[in-house]
Amino acid sequence: MGSGLVARALVIGAAGMIGRKLVARLAKDGGVDELVLHDIVPPQPPAGARFKVRTVTSDLSAPREAEQLIAERPQLIFHLAAVVSGEAEADFDKGYRINLAGTWQLFEAIRRAGEGYRPRLVFTSSIAVFGAPFPEAIDDEFLSAPLTSYGTQKAIGELLLSDYSRRGFFDGIGLRLPTICVRPGKPNRAASGFFSGIIREPLAREEAVLPVPKTVRHWFASPRAAIGFLLHAATIDTARLGTRRNLSMPGISATVGEQIEALRKVAGESAVRLIREAPDATIQRIVEGWPRNFTPKRALELGFRADTSFEEIIRIHIEDELGSRRA
Amino acid sequence: MGSGLVARALVIGAAGMIGRKLVARLAKDGGVDELVLHDIVPPQPPAGARFKVRTVTSDLSAPREAEQLIAERPQLIFHLAAVVSGEAEADFDKGYRINLAGTWQLFEAIRRAGEGYRPRLVFTSSIAVFGAPFPEAIDDEFLSAPLTSYGTQKAIGELLLSDYSRRGFFDGIGLRLPTICVRPGKPNRAASGFFSGIIREPLAREEAVLPVPKTVRHWFASPRAAIGFLLHAATIDTARLGTRRNLSMPGISATVGEQIEALRKVAGESAVRLIREAPDATIQRIVEGWPRNFTPKRALELGFRADTSFEEIIRIHIEDELGSRRA
Repeated sequence: MGSGLVARALVIGAAGMIGRKLVARLAKDGGVDELVLHDIVPPQPPAGARFKVRTVTSDLSAPREAEQLIAERPQLIFHLAAVVSGEAEADFDKGYRINLAGTWQLFEAIRRAGEGYRPRLVFTSSIAVFGAPFPEAIDDEFLSAPLTSYGTQKAIGELLLSDYSRRGFFDGIGLRLPTICVRPGKPNRAASGFFSGIIREPLAREEAVLPVPKTVRHWFASPRAAIGFLLHAATIDTARLGTRRNLSMPGISATVGEQIEALRKVAGESAVRLIREAPDATIQRIVEGWPRNFTPKRALELGFRADTSFEEIIRIHIEDELGSRRA
Repeated sequence: MGSGLVARALVIGAAGMIGRKLVARLAKDGGVDELVLHDIVPPQPPAGARFKVRTVTSDLSAPREAEQLIAERPQLIFHLAAVVSGEAEADFDKGYRINLAGTWQLFEAIRRAGEGYRPRLVFTSSIAVFGAPFPEAIDDEFLSAPLTSYGTQKAIGELLLSDYSRRGFFDGIGLRLPTICVRPGKPNRAASGFFSGIIREPLAREEAVLPVPKTVRHWFASPRAAIGFLLHAATIDTARLGTRRNLSMPGISATVGEQIEALRKVAGESAVRLIREAPDATIQRIVEGWPRNFTPKRALELGFRADTSFEEIIRIHIEDELGSRRA
């Protein structure tokens, strides 16, 4: 985004991994006059921001919280907040309360603000809206038939976003993010954690566990690419989207074997030796229901850009997280 | 259904056109020991039922209504209740309250009943879950990208039904009904009303208005076929559905011109002359966003059977509604 494009932006889910990276990037690049950071745990204001930053800690699904959040009418809203896949599956009530009721309450609060208020709303959806059986590659017209509660909640968020946008209540765009890899820091409760772990841990000279066969194929984007998607979505001319406002983002399709080969090229055999195979039938079964490859034609035509290789994804992790010390 | 298959069945939306016909058919065929009829307006008990019938009039979306409805744990639930397309578009709040919140509350009430309660739930969805642009014929893997609030609410109902079924809270099946034709009685607020009107009114020797060109193609099933879908869904082995529990029902694809030709064959030129062309740009624009044709392979494999021709659809209307007096 250029500077001063937006007077006030709101990031919901600002304490999560994507939220923190988005906020850091906004602090670096500018483009907003005021940034409001929201999460259920206290979000960290970014270092070095040249604009006003305010933080709000509350439960989005609690009564009137959404109304309060949009009372100042931010022109740009990033709605990133979600209970992740593993937790939404383990805690049915919490997943639906946050991911469905929370999202719907936010959309309703915006609608009820009325009086010409029509912010741009960028929503992070997920490839979890798709469920097996799949074609070789999932195109832009493949059905959403999720096999998890998380995927169901995201698919419903997409439908609401489309309808509320069509009715003119906000100007929404939903991005189906690939699995983000390499996730920095500690594993979260997502069942997809090992896809990052087998890269992140060896680069930190720690052992990593691989619970699935090397033939498993999956769909990836770096955190840096994901932030690029969000910022592009914040400023794109949404008239170009037509009525279909939810887009599968581009990414890299790689097997676990190809991930490991890329790790070998970047960090050598000693890193690869830290991956220990420990088959886990439960995780294998879950992963079998996940997308492997996409042909995200619409997103590419609309200018969304992915990483160029899995090697690049590893190098980005080293640059952004390890201070280039393994590069 | 055979006799005595189900001790207690509940029909939600029993006062609507489909609800009344379903209840009449159950009264004729048997198969239940007790039938509970629910609607927001008082449902009519069927004539000649050889089983106990109870009626309940309440607003499904009101607090605790859903809990009360399932307190007696019906083993079979038909959830037919909905605000129709035209009204859901005109009254945004009402459409979401009944079609989304009401459906979700019903599903939650069933889940919270717990203790091994796992009824069969048959949900009427709609081809309105699909939105243009379309392929020549919509297959079983085409995306739900609705262009109306009604279609959005039905698509969300489908997603919830799949997830609640996957989690074992009930044994759900969703049926995407074609446009029901010929609808008996007065027009409702559905924008699709003219598809029935141009047959029903001439057969009653009244003038009918045609607001779209004769080249418009659409997807139809008779009320009798729709009742057949519901009863088949009530007893089908849902293990055969796998994880995808929402099915596009079979139907007849016909242009308005073909509808009129069928009317000519059945009722002669004098009937056709009662159709007055009165182009309506608003209705034309709405209809352009509607599905025209399907390849409902899964539903056919699962034994759902449609009408065989549009002529048959007209003859069914004459038999079932006009006492065969035009046959």
